[in-house]
Amino acid sequence: MTGTLDWLKEAAAAREAAGLVRRLSVTKSADIVDLAGNDYLGLRHHPAVVAGAVAAVETYGSGAGASRLVTGTLDVHEELESALVGLTGAPSALVLSSGYQANLAAVAGLADAGTLIVSDEHAHASLIDGCRLSRAAVNVARHNDLEHVAELLARRDVPRAVVVAESVYSVLGDTAPVEDLVALTAEAGAMLVVDEAHALGVLGPGGAGLLASIGALGAEHVVATGTLSKSFAAQGGLVLADPVVRDHLVNTARPFVYDTGLAPASAGAALAAIGVLHEHPELLPRVHANAARLAEVCGIPVPDGAVMSVRMPGPHETVEAVERARAEGIRVGAFRPPSTPDGSSRLRLTAHADHGAHELERACAVLADLVPAPV
Amino acid sequence: MTGTLDWLKEAAAAREAAGLVRRLSVTKSADIVDLAGNDYLGLRHHPAVVAGAVAAVETYGSGAGASRLVTGTLDVHEELESALVGLTGAPSALVLSSGYQANLAAVAGLADAGTLIVSDEHAHASLIDGCRLSRAAVNVARHNDLEHVAELLARRDVPRAVVVAESVYSVLGDTAPVEDLVALTAEAGAMLVVDEAHALGVLGPGGAGLLASIGALGAEHVVATGTLSKSFAAQGGLVLADPVVRDHLVNTARPFVYDTGLAPASAGAALAAIGVLHEHPELLPRVHANAARLAEVCGIPVPDGAVMSVRMPGPHETVEAVERARAEGIRVGAFRPPSTPDGSSRLRLTAHADHGAHELERACAVLADLVPAPV
Repeated sequence: MTGTLDWLKEAAAAREAAGLVRRLSVTKSADIVDLAGNDYLGLRHHPAVVAGAVAAVETYGSGAGASRLVTGTLDVHEELESALVGLTGAPSALVLSSGYQANLAAVAGLADAGTLIVSDEHAHASLIDGCRLSRAAVNVARHNDLEHVAELLARRDVPRAVVVAESVYSVLGDTAPVEDLVALTAEAGAMLVVDEAHALGVLGPGGAGLLASIGALGAEHVVATGTLSKSFAAQGGLVLADPVVRDHLVNTARPFVYDTGLAPASAGAALAAIGVLHEHPELLPRVHANAARLAEVCGIPVPDGAVMSVRMPGPHETVEAVERARAEGIRVGAFRPPSTPDGSSRLRLTAHADHGAHELERACAVLADLVPAPV
Repeated sequence: MTGTLDWLKEAAAAREAAGLVRRLSVTKSADIVDLAGNDYLGLRHHPAVVAGAVAAVETYGSGAGASRLVTGTLDVHEELESALVGLTGAPSALVLSSGYQANLAAVAGLADAGTLIVSDEHAHASLIDGCRLSRAAVNVARHNDLEHVAELLARRDVPRAVVVAESVYSVLGDTAPVEDLVALTAEAGAMLVVDEAHALGVLGPGGAGLLASIGALGAEHVVATGTLSKSFAAQGGLVLADPVVRDHLVNTARPFVYDTGLAPASAGAALAAIGVLHEHPELLPRVHANAARLAEVCGIPVPDGAVMSVRMPGPHETVEAVERARAEGIRVGAFRPPSTPDGSSRLRLTAHADHGAHELERACAVLADLVPAPV
């Protein structure tokens, strides 16, 4: 038969031998302290957010039914885009059906064969796929290395350039030097695309993100992307940018043009989550306090955001630690190659605003036992 | 400043001059006969489908909160995957967050540098982007030309091959010769990926799609993709395949691995829509009867599925016809370059099971006036 299936079977056997098999298992939320998911504000079951999703389904139906460019643009999409502008101060917002597609659209939409992309080596898979789709030449810069970015930009032999980074990196949880990146790209005549997936709702004034905290979202060369599936407790992606960029994506970005509009329930939930965040500014310090406590018990530095990473000896030890935690009612993430930027195996922990002192201490007691002593 | 913004502004001016500007406008459903959207079964506002979405939000929350591989797999995802297997008879199903991402995952996941992809020239943007992400060599076959596909496969100098097609093409609405493609790929030792986005819910036994109608979904070299955002009235994508393929995608497909799980409301809505379709088999003949009536008034052949396409003289005439129809309460789609496979401008019409005789005749009266006389 086909050689492709043999190839897939060989790849499966190699994964098995390396301890790198991934299997899907259902998560039941009862009695679990979730330190693995990305709903940093803990709003997925918030009554106002659930009500926002339900009202949108009842008003607009269960799906958008068509591309946003045909008959799939609904009032709730425009309300959500306005709310994102209100939260962040960005000049305009565009909502897509996933954060993955937002990154494909933004990166591929801003670059072509006449563009050099300089991408941080820890950039998310969706940003990397955006680079691949763009047909641009791509140079990978050493992680958070401004001099390397500047050097690669200076050496370019094409008229345009785009620098790609994340404000909070998804696995290691460290932050990018965004203020320097904004200045450096302005000086070099380059665009800057920053994925704020793990910063929105967690960092910046009122959760507006890291770019907003330095007033950079108004700069016409700066584009932020993000997701509605983390702090905003729904599904979907977003691009915050100058209206010229938004118009360009609406007209040309394939993951926007050739895709059904975001489901009304997700738009309604995210809109409600932004409202809850506005009314409850105390959610932010709660995330940070919980992150500080988790970092302390793990013996790692307190992160700027909600994401923490603990290095483990290898993939088997990582999976074993996750399973021991699970047996004690705690969910933590296992990140193994190829999901870690440096080829290491790691536990990934996230702080959540809705974890009370009792749950948090229960989790800390388990973690204290699991985390390897610092070398 | 940056040359990128100048480039975007020039592209915008060129679109304006060519009559190809796309703008987003909100669709209000009241008093509109929608012949543009893709909810072929008309289930977006069906009480059982709305109830399915609402129940899922109330049970599981407004978002999945994490990747399916971390804590984002919920009972409702597994129930939906089982229902898709039940509907189609496929050996296994995997649900993703959009149809776009399902195609990226399936095509890029099955091909590498040792693979030749032979893709139909009318393939959807998401299939084309999947080809680009795969790092495979890609040969484009003339539309629905089996001999050309066979010739390209025979000429390959790499060990593996994947053929990419759609069962119902999204703009022109014509169908692929899937039975021949299944036989041809089996003989050539190639995989076959068929996007059933516009066939599921409309064609095949009980709406199981075109591959199911010829008993091809059990063949290990056949992979179907599709969307939950058309007949199934929600948002999301799906892959139907041999479990070896499913496991491979779960472990390696970046648009699955590095993405938040499908929102519970969308999974719940799609699950309910499959239930409604099962209980109301009369929905299928209704779609086909409505398609036949619309085709008759437009003077075009009756389509196999629900999608029809009427060639127009140019982009300006197309936009003008859409605006005249809208003024009369009828929504039809405008497809202009680069959204048409042959560079023409076209009206795109879709049939819907929920249009009653009165609405349909109202639409036909408007269309009779708009559609150019056959040459």
